[in-house]
Amino acid sequence: MDPNAITQLLAPVFNMENKNKALSAGRLMAKGLNAGPGAASGRIALSAEKAIEMSASGKVVLVRFETSPEDLAGMDVAQGILTARGGMTSHAAVVARGMGKPCVVGCGDLDIDYDKNTITAGGRTLNEGDNISIDGTTGEVLEGIVETMESEVIQILVEGKGEASESIVYRNFYKLMSWAEKAKRLGVRTNADTPHDAEIARSLGAKGIGLCRTEHMFFDEDRILAVREMIVAETTAEREKALAKILPMQRGDFEGIFTAMNNLPVTIRLLDPPLHEFLPKEEEAQAELATQLGVPLDGLQQRIESLIEMNPMLGHRGCRLGITYPEIYKMQVRAIFEAAVNCKKKGVNPVPEVMIPLVGFKSELAFLNEILLKEIEAVFAEKGTRVDYLMGTMIEVPRAAITANEIAEIAEFFSFGTNDLTQMGLGFSRDDAGTFIGDYLTKKIFPYDPFQSIDVAGVGELVRIACEKGRSVKPDLKLGICGEHGGDPASVHFCHEVGLNYVSCSPYRVPVAILAAAQANLS
Amino acid sequence: MDPNAITQLLAPVFNMENKNKALSAGRLMAKGLNAGPGAASGRIALSAEKAIEMSASGKVVLVRFETSPEDLAGMDVAQGILTARGGMTSHAAVVARGMGKPCVVGCGDLDIDYDKNTITAGGRTLNEGDNISIDGTTGEVLEGIVETMESEVIQILVEGKGEASESIVYRNFYKLMSWAEKAKRLGVRTNADTPHDAEIARSLGAKGIGLCRTEHMFFDEDRILAVREMIVAETTAEREKALAKILPMQRGDFEGIFTAMNNLPVTIRLLDPPLHEFLPKEEEAQAELATQLGVPLDGLQQRIESLIEMNPMLGHRGCRLGITYPEIYKMQVRAIFEAAVNCKKKGVNPVPEVMIPLVGFKSELAFLNEILLKEIEAVFAEKGTRVDYLMGTMIEVPRAAITANEIAEIAEFFSFGTNDLTQMGLGFSRDDAGTFIGDYLTKKIFPYDPFQSIDVAGVGELVRIACEKGRSVKPDLKLGICGEHGGDPASVHFCHEVGLNYVSCSPYRVPVAILAAAQANLS
Repeated sequence: MDPNAITQLLAPVFNMENKNKALSAGRLMAKGLNAGPGAASGRIALSAEKAIEMSASGKVVLVRFETSPEDLAGMDVAQGILTARGGMTSHAAVVARGMGKPCVVGCGDLDIDYDKNTITAGGRTLNEGDNISIDGTTGEVLEGIVETMESEVIQILVEGKGEASESIVYRNFYKLMSWAEKAKRLGVRTNADTPHDAEIARSLGAKGIGLCRTEHMFFDEDRILAVREMIVAETTAEREKALAKILPMQRGDFEGIFTAMNNLPVTIRLLDPPLHEFLPKEEEAQAELATQLGVPLDGLQQRIESLIEMNPMLGHRGCRLGITYPEIYKMQVRAIFEAAVNCKKKGVNPVPEVMIPLVGFKSELAFLNEILLKEIEAVFAEKGTRVDYLMGTMIEVPRAAITANEIAEIAEFFSFGTNDLTQMGLGFSRDDAGTFIGDYLTKKIFPYDPFQSIDVAGVGELVRIACEKGRSVKPDLKLGICGEHGGDPASVHFCHEVGLNYVSCSPYRVPVAILAAAQANLS
Repeated sequence: MDPNAITQLLAPVFNMENKNKALSAGRLMAKGLNAGPGAASGRIALSAEKAIEMSASGKVVLVRFETSPEDLAGMDVAQGILTARGGMTSHAAVVARGMGKPCVVGCGDLDIDYDKNTITAGGRTLNEGDNISIDGTTGEVLEGIVETMESEVIQILVEGKGEASESIVYRNFYKLMSWAEKAKRLGVRTNADTPHDAEIARSLGAKGIGLCRTEHMFFDEDRILAVREMIVAETTAEREKALAKILPMQRGDFEGIFTAMNNLPVTIRLLDPPLHEFLPKEEEAQAELATQLGVPLDGLQQRIESLIEMNPMLGHRGCRLGITYPEIYKMQVRAIFEAAVNCKKKGVNPVPEVMIPLVGFKSELAFLNEILLKEIEAVFAEKGTRVDYLMGTMIEVPRAAITANEIAEIAEFFSFGTNDLTQMGLGFSRDDAGTFIGDYLTKKIFPYDPFQSIDVAGVGELVRIACEKGRSVKPDLKLGICGEHGGDPASVHFCHEVGLNYVSCSPYRVPVAILAAAQANLS
């Protein structure tokens, strides 16, 4: 069987009778790429703010030209996401799949007018607030509401509704997954940033978190102000003052995640994205922020300006931030280990693995480890108790793969960030490659999209080199993968063959990865 | 001896007596990074347009916040370049060194006000048009004129002025270079885009061109309009019409270069940068262009908008352009081979080597080679004569290095583009790394700037892998390097050890590379 097929048992679905009626009534507006399976209906929201506002009084579908990290809160409250631009690995598609939300992207026929607050497609113009339905399994976009329902598997496993013994679908799902669980060698973890996601993934079979992105917590409405205060700080003292406000919130996040993942490893990646992603782009929002922070607008705008980069993907981010501003990473490890100790005192068994992103040089890791280990020991001393943990690194910069023997002298685990390793190894910006990848596929230059399934000969070879070099220094080095590829069956096969310990993927891809891992081991 | 020291014999110099007078008169305004050795004086021009205009009536120094390819024509007419931003490998620094022009960059104390057309530093405010002097050997910026003069070596070798036998400096230079020429194994070529640069490099000892960037020709005032017409074309037919206007100009360029490099190899790189680099960014210039092309402004602006990329370094450029728009590369090879045949008929012996940039996959090269070889054969058939040539590729994407055995099945030579290989291999945007590389050097995470001297353990390892894999398929594969590293002595040592056939560097670095190559072979 195709492991991907299992996702159809997890996605919310349209009531087919209803959908057929809508189609025969000519309500089909357009067709895009089926980026996140499942069905969603609701009122059109054309911005994240509007989605949040409207979601208080009913279901919404977020419709954007394309999405960015600023839209996360809006995506979170939406039933589904529809974008005019972007490919299968655009921000909207990746985040939606991670959230298990239906998503249609690259809907080129869709005309969005942010000024008039309308969308137009297939000769129909709808206003913000009008109803729309999207089928992320087929890419269809329909006018009006088409009734949806949760899949039986999710109702039973995740929501605790319904009776397992009465659901044939669930029983078959359970039987298949039990077989797969026994047949596989590879571990399967999940990429989860919240206790909620962690719980879903665990109920779907994940045996730990392979990637917990701390920055997603930074976008929460109640803490983004403190984050922004930290970024515009002009001195280390000011920055530390703002960080002190973030510390208890991060600690709370980690307590929730350690509790949800009791006894299972939780790999936490320290801050990764460039700082400008956290600052508002619109003049109005900038003015509001200046007032909130009590700083002059022009000074704030200069700071925002100074953070703009030509190629942010290759810029001041990842461990480079930790090296120029060690106080940020120090706050993060303090939050992690205060949370771990607190959990331990409550009888929870936390298994933290701290992961440094974007490392390319052993010297980067050495510099940070010295500072961070000291901070961790300080927490243990203050709290009078210790917690076992690992300190490791992402392998996502080609140089890190090439010099993995040096890096393994310090790192206790490697986690392959194959999204970025693909971007840098192939020289493809994921945000921009949409303009030519289609042509490459049509002209048969690529057999498949290397962001969807790992490029075995290139990126895979870098992974293979890193595994060999890493284990030549530390034979029992723990190796995992936390890119989107972790949920792709062909990539899971590769991970099995190359000898990784585990793959990690978004919660709703966990059953897919388990099945693929079993097939890899049996074949 | 330090091979770098030889550049001091080539750079224009201040009359020391004059400079000391200026210093003791308190005319020192600021100090930046000494990015291009030599001295320059002239009137301040704050834009490329102004520099061109003002250069008609005297010497100018171009002063910018930072430079971009749009400023090339202005840099070309300026005596020297001064920028407030940027590091030793910023656009200004790299281009200035290539042009052999004095350059001071990263002059953080310099405040430029483009609205008021003033610059302020060291408590002095100067207006555009006022005189300024920069010493690119020391980084000093002085108010007013300090008299400069060409070095004796350049006067004799390049300008044909003066008497060799009367110049001790020249005779010592000549003796040293003759020794080095005999002692080295590595070939030394130059990076040159014009017959003028080619001639300078040849007179300084270059034995061919390792990198001729065709896009620099596109910026010439008399052809940029046709280039822009080509870019905004909406159909292949329209694009071909615009390309037909560019063809004779490119052919003329190549005839000039082949003639200057008679009997020596000329490696011509097909179009590399993203197309948006050729379009105007300012509204006013966009409106002018719309009028010139007879297209509506909003349509033109939409096209410009559609070309903007999140990470242009990793975007739609290099061979990706050739694959989506094969007609561009077809025009370029037609221009190259029409020029070659024309030269041959005049008794010149052209040795063209066509180089495809940004290849990561054998399939990219296979796709393009099929189209381009057909076009080349068509030219030979039309002209009734043939010219020997090579078809090869840049190795600048990490994946290309990793899969060099596959790529060598098609490519007849490799040229390592170590600038981009460093950017992608390390995940460092050259334009943005200035914000943290300084900190990395201070904190001893880097022993040196990897854009200045090749990162042997990382980027060097990719080069080594590619050499081995490439020669495992084609034992006599010709291997060269054409990044800025080709003019850096330590990097030249590495190139010698790894078994390259040649290095290529900017004209004024050729003597440095020759000396370093000799030292590498003797040590």
